[in-house]
Amino acid sequence: MSDARAIGVFDSGLGGLTVLKALMQNLPQENFVYLGDTARLPYGTKSPQTIRKYTEQNLKTLLKYDVKAIVIACNSASAQFQDPEFEGLPVFNVIGPGMEAALQATKNQKIGLLGTKATVKSRAYEIALKRLSGETTRELFSIPAPLLVPLAEEGWDEDPITNLIVFRYVQPLVQEGVDTIILGCTHYPILRKSLQRAAGNEIQLVDSGDVLSKKIKSTIAEGRLKSCAKRNRVQLLSTDDPQSFGGFAEKILSPEKFDSLEAINI
Amino acid sequence: MSDARAIGVFDSGLGGLTVLKALMQNLPQENFVYLGDTARLPYGTKSPQTIRKYTEQNLKTLLKYDVKAIVIACNSASAQFQDPEFEGLPVFNVIGPGMEAALQATKNQKIGLLGTKATVKSRAYEIALKRLSGETTRELFSIPAPLLVPLAEEGWDEDPITNLIVFRYVQPLVQEGVDTIILGCTHYPILRKSLQRAAGNEIQLVDSGDVLSKKIKSTIAEGRLKSCAKRNRVQLLSTDDPQSFGGFAEKILSPEKFDSLEAINI
Repeated sequence: MSDARAIGVFDSGLGGLTVLKALMQNLPQENFVYLGDTARLPYGTKSPQTIRKYTEQNLKTLLKYDVKAIVIACNSASAQFQDPEFEGLPVFNVIGPGMEAALQATKNQKIGLLGTKATVKSRAYEIALKRLSGETTRELFSIPAPLLVPLAEEGWDEDPITNLIVFRYVQPLVQEGVDTIILGCTHYPILRKSLQRAAGNEIQLVDSGDVLSKKIKSTIAEGRLKSCAKRNRVQLLSTDDPQSFGGFAEKILSPEKFDSLEAINI
Repeated sequence: MSDARAIGVFDSGLGGLTVLKALMQNLPQENFVYLGDTARLPYGTKSPQTIRKYTEQNLKTLLKYDVKAIVIACNSASAQFQDPEFEGLPVFNVIGPGMEAALQATKNQKIGLLGTKATVKSRAYEIALKRLSGETTRELFSIPAPLLVPLAEEGWDEDPITNLIVFRYVQPLVQEGVDTIILGCTHYPILRKSLQRAAGNEIQLVDSGDVLSKKIKSTIAEGRLKSCAKRNRVQLLSTDDPQSFGGFAEKILSPEKFDSLEAINI
């Protein structure tokens, strides 16, 4: 038996489209409803209480679209909402799967994290590391990188100024000797080339989109989530004017395509 | 007869504190209530409808604090709310007074504007220029500068990277030959040194704080607003967790002091 209901994906704004793209490519038979809370973005500079409140409002909104599971793409929101379910539906967040992937990737047990202020301050990745690695001593070095989101949104993804800023954020991680860096914000894959250049080719970058795709695939394989037989719809929702959202979505998702885009009130 | 009620000041977040400081220094006898909508900042990337809605909610909130007038410090909000009154109270916004000051400053009739995407796209300063300059031909050159807000908030105000980014935004205005630049966002005065360096000493920078202080002083002098005999209170309100707000407020307002800081729900 298949389940044609969509997978809901929620992000504070546009960055989560990098996650949606990975999900669309890795789960080609699934339908998706993406909700970008563009009227209240960014979350990464806001308080835990406010982020939790907004996240619950967004989850409630996605329930109205008859989804079978929800992915919280936003790291800042994931850090504040780690419950495995919401009103009976499975919820996937990026923190646990991201840390699992980093632990599989690292050889020297030194992991770096780049994230928003809210994500770093929440210590959510440290908590996941302790939970997953048990007695083994592993180190996590975290750097808040608040300028990367506006740089990605300004479209300066291939720019010497971006390289300078990325270098400044990445250098302390390189000096600590990490061999793996978690890209702890959905915008960062847009700056991936610049990040890889600053980190050097020896350092592995862990990207939420890949990580979440694998997690959902394995959940389907284990029979804990029913797959859809064939994709027929990818729907985008935004809480602010969808105009600039549309252009950005086309660029990020390419060559994948969406079917509809509409503004909603929360 | 004096009027001890406070002057309400509203901004999308922290930047308006540069305006509050100027008001406190230029109107030393007045009380102030400052509302920073930190739970929903920034406004400068959002749509006109959303900004207008948030602005009206903030004005309504300030009414509850028994204010005698309201200053909209935020340029993005001012661009969407130019009504001279709100529920019977006088409202001052930065657009008209900012353009008046630029027209007084310019000698070659070429004015530059740096602002958020929302402010530049609104064309509010162009409309003010046409209204104020009548038949005279004057030119306005506008540049959206979205990275300046996060740079100011990151605290990189004396930094070579900031100088590079500021130079990139200011250079097209210098090449157009402007002799006056309107700092069309309350955060920009934090980067004033870097902006003046990039513009050169021949170019005058017009700052919303100075402009609004003069406007309110003249309104009081003309008898259209009653002054307060003696200041006894400066109150700060924020819609998100006030913790980081407090440190930022102390730094920006210094040597001026505030009396209280509390979080409110809107």
